[in-house]
Formats: sequence, C-alpha cells, structure tokens
Amino acid sequence: MRTDGVLNILGKLLILISGCLLTPIPFSIYFNDGMISEFLICALIGVLMGGLLVALFVPNDDIGYRDGFAIVVLSWLGLAFLGSLPFYFSGVMPSYTDCFFEAMSGFTTTGSTILNEVEILPKSILFWRALTHWIGGMGIIVLSLAILPLLGVGGMQLFQAEMPGPTTDRLAPKMQDTARILWGVYVLLTVGEVILLMIGGLDFFDAICHAFATLATGGFSTHTASVGYYQSVYVEVVIVLFMYIAGVNFSLHYQGLHGRFSAYWKSEEFRFYSLLIILSVLIIICANLYANIFSSLGENIRASLFQVVSIMTTTGFGTADFEQWPPLCKVLLVSLMFVGGCAGSTGGGIKVVRLLLFIKYARLQLRKLVHPNVVSTIKIGKQKVPNDVLVGILGFFGLYIVFFLTASFVVTALGVDIVTGTTAVIATLNNIGPGLLKVGPAHNFGELPVLAKWTLSFCMLAGRLELYTVAVLMSPGFWKMARRPKFRWQDLTNGRL
Amino acid sequence: MRTDGVLNILGKLLILISGCLLTPIPFSIYFNDGMISEFLICALIGVLMGGLLVALFVPNDDIGYRDGFAIVVLSWLGLAFLGSLPFYFSGVMPSYTDCFFEAMSGFTTTGSTILNEVEILPKSILFWRALTHWIGGMGIIVLSLAILPLLGVGGMQLFQAEMPGPTTDRLAPKMQDTARILWGVYVLLTVGEVILLMIGGLDFFDAICHAFATLATGGFSTHTASVGYYQSVYVEVVIVLFMYIAGVNFSLHYQGLHGRFSAYWKSEEFRFYSLLIILSVLIIICANLYANIFSSLGENIRASLFQVVSIMTTTGFGTADFEQWPPLCKVLLVSLMFVGGCAGSTGGGIKVVRLLLFIKYARLQLRKLVHPNVVSTIKIGKQKVPNDVLVGILGFFGLYIVFFLTASFVVTALGVDIVTGTTAVIATLNNIGPGLLKVGPAHNFGELPVLAKWTLSFCMLAGRLELYTVAVLMSPGFWKMARRPKFRWQDLTNGRL
Repeated sequence: MRTDGVLNILGKLLILISGCLLTPIPFSIYFNDGMISEFLICALIGVLMGGLLVALFVPNDDIGYRDGFAIVVLSWLGLAFLGSLPFYFSGVMPSYTDCFFEAMSGFTTTGSTILNEVEILPKSILFWRALTHWIGGMGIIVLSLAILPLLGVGGMQLFQAEMPGPTTDRLAPKMQDTARILWGVYVLLTVGEVILLMIGGLDFFDAICHAFATLATGGFSTHTASVGYYQSVYVEVVIVLFMYIAGVNFSLHYQGLHGRFSAYWKSEEFRFYSLLIILSVLIIICANLYANIFSSLGENIRASLFQVVSIMTTTGFGTADFEQWPPLCKVLLVSLMFVGGCAGSTGGGIKVVRLLLFIKYARLQLRKLVHPNVVSTIKIGKQKVPNDVLVGILGFFGLYIVFFLTASFVVTALGVDIVTGTTAVIATLNNIGPGLLKVGPAHNFGELPVLAKWTLSFCMLAGRLELYTVAVLMSPGFWKMARRPKFRWQDLTNGRL
Repeated sequence: MRTDGVLNILGKLLILISGCLLTPIPFSIYFNDGMISEFLICALIGVLMGGLLVALFVPNDDIGYRDGFAIVVLSWLGLAFLGSLPFYFSGVMPSYTDCFFEAMSGFTTTGSTILNEVEILPKSILFWRALTHWIGGMGIIVLSLAILPLLGVGGMQLFQAEMPGPTTDRLAPKMQDTARILWGVYVLLTVGEVILLMIGGLDFFDAICHAFATLATGGFSTHTASVGYYQSVYVEVVIVLFMYIAGVNFSLHYQGLHGRFSAYWKSEEFRFYSLLIILSVLIIICANLYANIFSSLGENIRASLFQVVSIMTTTGFGTADFEQWPPLCKVLLVSLMFVGGCAGSTGGGIKVVRLLLFIKYARLQLRKLVHPNVVSTIKIGKQKVPNDVLVGILGFFGLYIVFFLTASFVVTALGVDIVTGTTAVIATLNNIGPGLLKVGPAHNFGELPVLAKWTLSFCMLAGRLELYTVAVLMSPGFWKMARRPKFRWQDLTNGRL
C-alpha cells in the first residue's frame, strides 16, 4: 500500500471539508445564532490536520486498487470526526459519543438522530447537519458508481458498464471524470428541489436543508415532526418525487438529462424498484383501510405513499407514526428496510439489484430442477451475470448476516430490548434512520447505552461502504500485504536496517 | 410424470401408515382410555384409501427423477391427513384445522402445538402424537440423504458422496438400501434412549414418547410443562445428548456404529455444528449469569445447555421459559432457530452446512478483494464445492426469503402482532416448535386465526421438504411437462381425441 499517497489524499479531503465547514457561517450571521467562532475553530482544526497530512506525506500518482479500500474507509472516518466537531463545540449534544453518532449518521446518509427536539438547535448547526447528508450523498454516488465496481466489491462490478464518462484503467482519472459528471446531475436535482419546495411556501433555509436530506436519502429534518410539520400535500408530493429519484441509479439520470429517457425503462433494476414501491404502497393502503387507521382515503394514500418511499429509499423522513399501523404494515415496512435503493443511488440497504438476482437464482434453480439438463444463465437487462458476481453476492449476504448478528448481539447484550435492538441495527446497517419501539419514528437513539451508539455508528459506516470495504480493512491479509518490506519489524530487531 | 406409478406408491404408503395407526391400540387397552374404536376406524379409512389407490393405479418400476418430487410432497400431505383423523375422531381438539395443524406439526417433526394442556388427552392419542414425530423423522432421514441429493435440491447433492449403501443410478433401489441402513441406526438410537430414560425413572410410556420426539427433533411431550415436568438433571442430560445426536448427519452415526469414530471429527459440518452449540451455550450462560436469572450456576448451565441444544437442533422441548431471559439470549436463540441441524439429520432449519458455505463464500470474496488475481475454490472437508451447488444455495436463500416474507405478510395481515407472527413463521418454517410472545414456550398456537394455522402448516411442510420440493410442484413448468399428451385439453377441444 502507498501509505504516503493515501494519507496525502486524506489530508486534501480534510482541507476540502474544512472549506465546507465555513458554509454554515452566513446562516449563523443571518440568524444571529452566535456560532461563527465555533465553525471557524472547526475549520481551522480541519485545515491544520489536513495541512499536516499533506505536508508530511508526499502525493503518489500510483494510487491503485488496494489503496482504494483504505482511502474510502479513512475518508468516511475523517468526515465523521471533523463533522462531529461543530456539534461538540456548540454544546448542543450531551456527549461526544452523541456528536460522533450524529455526524456519522449524517455522512452515511442514515438520518438516525439522538436529538429529542430539533427546533431548539442553532440554525447554522441544523444547516451543517443537512450538509453532512449532502456531502455524504455525493461521496456515495462516486463510491458506488466509480470506485466499488473497480474494486470488485460485493458484485458491484456488474455496473461498470453503466458508468458514464470515458473508461481508462487507472483509478484516479476515471474516478474524477465520473465524479464530475455525476455531481453535475446531483447539483442540478438539488437546485430543482429547492426551487420546487420554495414554491410550496418553505423559506430558503428549510428548502435547502430538506433538499440536501432528500437527494442524499438522509432524513435529517429541521423540525422535530420531520416533513409532517408542514401539513402540506404539495411539499410531501415534491419530497416523495425526489426521494424516488434519489433511490435510482444516478447514471440513469445522467442519460435522462441527455434526453435518453428510454434508459430508465430499459433498466431492469429500475423497473423492479418501481414495481416494488407500487405494490407495497397498494398493500399498505389496503391494510390501513381495513384497520380504519385514517379518516379519509386521501389521507391514507398520502401517508402510505410517503412512508413506503421514505423507508424503501432509506431516507427515513416521517409524516406519520407507522408504529400505530396494523402489524402487516410494520412487517412490510421492516422488510422494505432491507431492500434499499438501486445500486448507484444514494439509497442504502441490500440494493434492489441484489434482491433481483436472488429471485433470479431461485427461479433458475427451480428451472434446473424441472429440466435437469437445461443450460441457463442469469441476465440483468441484456448483460450476462458472470460467476464472479455470483460469488460476490453470496459472500455479501454471508457478511451481512455476520455484521447483523454481531451488532444485534452487542446491542441487546447491553440490555436493549429485542425489537428496539434489532431494528436499530437494521435501521443503521441499511442507512435508513428510524427503527421500531424505542427507536421508532416518534422516538430517537439518544437513550441507548454509549457502547450501543458506537456499535451502531460502526454499522452505519459498514452498511454505507457495502460491508466489504470495511471488512477488507479488518482482514489480516490486507495488512500483511500492506506492510512495506523496508519497515518490517523483524528487520529492525535483527539489526538489518 | 408417471401418475399411476406415483399414486400407486402413495397408496402403499397409506396402507403402511394404517398399520402404524393400530400401534396406539395396546396403549389404549392398557390405560383403558376408550380410543380403540377410533383408531380402528382411522386405520380402516387409511386401508380403504390406500387400497383404492393401489387397485386403481398400476405400479410402475420406471419411477424416476421428476416423480420423486410428487411422491415426496404427496406423501407428507397424505401422512398429515391420515394422522389428523385420530385427533378428529377422538374429539380432543376444537376444530379440524387444529387436528391437521397438530398432525402436520408431528410428521414434519416441528412440535408446535395448539393444545393448552397435554395431560388431559387420552394416553393413546399422546402416543400417536409422538409416533407421528418418529415416522416423520424416519422419512426425513431418507429424504435428505437419499432422495434430495438425487433430485439436486438446494445444494444437497453435496452429500451424495456421504451416503452409505451401494450406489446405483436408479432412484428406487438406492433409496431402499440407504433407507434400510439408516433406519437401523435410527431404531437402535431410539431403543438406547428409551432404556436410558427408563433408568432415569420414567415409565415405559413416557420414555418411548420422549425418545420418539427426541430422535425426530420433534418436541411433542406427554406433559404440558414439557421435559421441565420431571425436574431431573439425569433425564435432561440424556435428552440433551440424544437431541445433539439427532442433529448430526445420520450417515456419520452409521459409520460411528461401525467403529469409524474418526468420521465425526473428519466432518467439517459436525465440527462447526458442535462449535456453534458450545459457543452459544457459553454466551447464554454468561448473559444469564450477568442478569441474575438463576439462583445457582448449576441451574444456569443446565437450563442454558438444554435450551440451546433444543432450539438449534429444532427440537423445541422446554425446561425453562426463555421469554424471561435477557434480550441477548432471545436474539441468540432466535438466530439459532435459523441454523438448524446438520444436513442428513432429523433437524430442520437452514442447515449448518449452508451457513458454513455462506461464511466460506464471504471469506473467499474477502480473499479475492485482497488478492484480486488469486484463483480459489471452496471446499467442504476434502470435497470441492461445484458451481451447481453454489447456484442451488443462492437460490435456496432467495426462496427462503420469498416463503418467509409471504407467510409473515399473511399471518400479520390476519391481525397477529409482529413478534408473534414472524416468530411463528420462523418456528414453523424451520420446524422448531415454539416462537416468542403468544406462541412462546409458555404458550401455544391454539389462539391464532384459522387461516394463520393453515399458512403455518404449509410453512412446516415447505420447510421440512427443503422449500424446493414444494416450490417445484407449484411451478407451472413442472405441470406443463407432467401433462401427458394423450390428455391435453387442446386435443379435447379440438376434437382430436
């Protein structure tokens, strides 16, 4: 591993984020919430840390395959650390654990919060919370469409072909080109949502914060009652639309913006994603109708549609407390938590395409049992799924089980009840936001034990980076190989140096 | 499909089970519980039905691959129907739904019951409940070691090599040879447990009923308090030992009885199975110790060991109400419910070997990410896992998700709460017995809605037959092919006949 090159890049990233740490200052000035010096200090710390890394470690153009894993994981850890500082210095959260949890929840676009009440926070802090989502979402799009396919993580290499931009063999140039194109799409959609929300009566501050949280499928709101605060059908429709958009592969949006709308329909994953949403909404409307939860059908459709899209895209915005809905709705919503968005979207979860492949393999096996001698392959769209992807997906699922169980054991071992504990893990591992019971939509993660919060922060990170990226760094093989011969401990003790 | 051959075999099986329906009569005479005529009537119905099938459909020696699926599913349905009749005619259960549920639970070795109190039942009926387990267990051993590998269901072909007995290409002779050998082992172990339990002070009736339920990893007891009734360490140790034995691949026992004890240790699945049990017991002991659930360490060890082995082998016997244990224990026990026994045992669940393969694929993918150019394969023991098995297992998991979700949706749609509903599905799909809350170890399935009971009966059947056997029969392709040209509907309407 090129440790110097990796740390140099990390330093540059920290400097970049320090720049972002200055953007809440205009809001602090406008709303006069007295947070200017706090953000300046945080930015200064970031610049110093980043500058130190850049100064100490020389850049290395030869950044390659293996360094990718280290850069990705270190970036998100660095983001979470730097992002937690404004929360810490402003004193709005009870402990540093809570600050780190909230920042990790922001940058991983999870949206789980430890806050009881949101409105009492300084506006600039609220803006920073939303901005962590937006930056995290940017990172995820590039990660899932440019970096992970090259790294071959969890079957994501399937989407290499769908990437816009020129194709070269080296990681860095390709990443930069793809990033530039996709970020253009991301910014354009954000601006679009801000304008539409302002037309709906939101002020600029609320509009931009909610647009950030929507496009990143994050879920932090500027109100304790989340989107439910506005009591506006128009606002909810706009947000549903953009949550739906944010759950779609962004390379499809790139093609869509270039007029190639057929790209959407040609994508099998997009079709399956849309079908799942429509079916789930219909089932939940019927169940709520049967159980007489709402006074009118209109309200029922409105709440059901919003919750399904919010949960499945892993956004986690709330307009209704679905804890009060019939058991069928809760089971369906918890199931949707696992699905998540399409690959290459800002949504978390297992991803629609993996589910689609699972079902296809089940059907293939059925076909093989009925016609033992048939030779058949699995295709996504027109692309044949290679054997490597198969192993990647099976392994992804094995790893998912390992992470899910380990985290559930730790959290419940700390005395958290079984439903709260397991749904908290589900909500963080899939980057959704709220779970059930004590972490349900009407509650928050603040009451959990300290160690549970750190475990769940780790779940957010692992889930966001498709598990493997984190698991690779935890495997001894990675470090054995990364150790450079020059600095081997044996050489030192043998006096060979 | 050779419909005549299949139905002929089903007829013979029904006649055989009618013979079994006579075995409770000696108990009825001894205990004078007045059930003699009921069992005679049931046996008569069975003989008539079976005789009718044998008389109407000619035997066909050419029974092959595809007929296997139909025979297996029809057999279990036939068993459940015939097995439910004594419950129905004796009038001990409130409705036919309950009778069918109880019989299906027996033959699939699940052990879920709708009964509030067990002791009030006539002794001969209690014996029949236990016997359904034992017959079902016999069927499962042959199914998983002789039939499913030949049918190639869900990756089970991996165990073809481990089968004892001569190998031929045709299904029937091989099945018979393997069956004879394995049933010998099964009977021997049952006799052994009966003797050991009688030494522990149980009367012959209780000993044989519990031995039947243990070796089949069923879980029906002759007492409402299950094995906890005896309050005897010795009895619990004997039953733990035999539950553990019943969860192991029976072809290993065949080799063990021939003095080749090294076969156990050579089996990677056996080692992993034992390791999982030991680790789980240790964790649960510690958690219970920490939460001060038991007054002494001895009691803690005794209860934890019993519950872990009972749940993981999918037996479902109870000595303690684990609903009262700390959340960690409940999460761990629910996780173990999914694991189940080894392939080729009477245990249900996903099977230890599939879990082992999942973990191996996760590790293979990790290794590939660290060393992208490495070529590696997966082995179980010394056997290389072929690609077909990989597709089978991935498909099995996809199908498992489909069955689990569909059943959970149906059960919770009927108004059952989310924890009761989903754990009821887990408990039946994995053939365990008790779930949590209203179907927990201190409760029963009697209060569930009628349609939920039928759904759960279907889950027991599907889970027991490794999902695919049932799914194949539900796939249109199977029937399209099975339809004999002579009787095509189009031919009739076209007037070609």
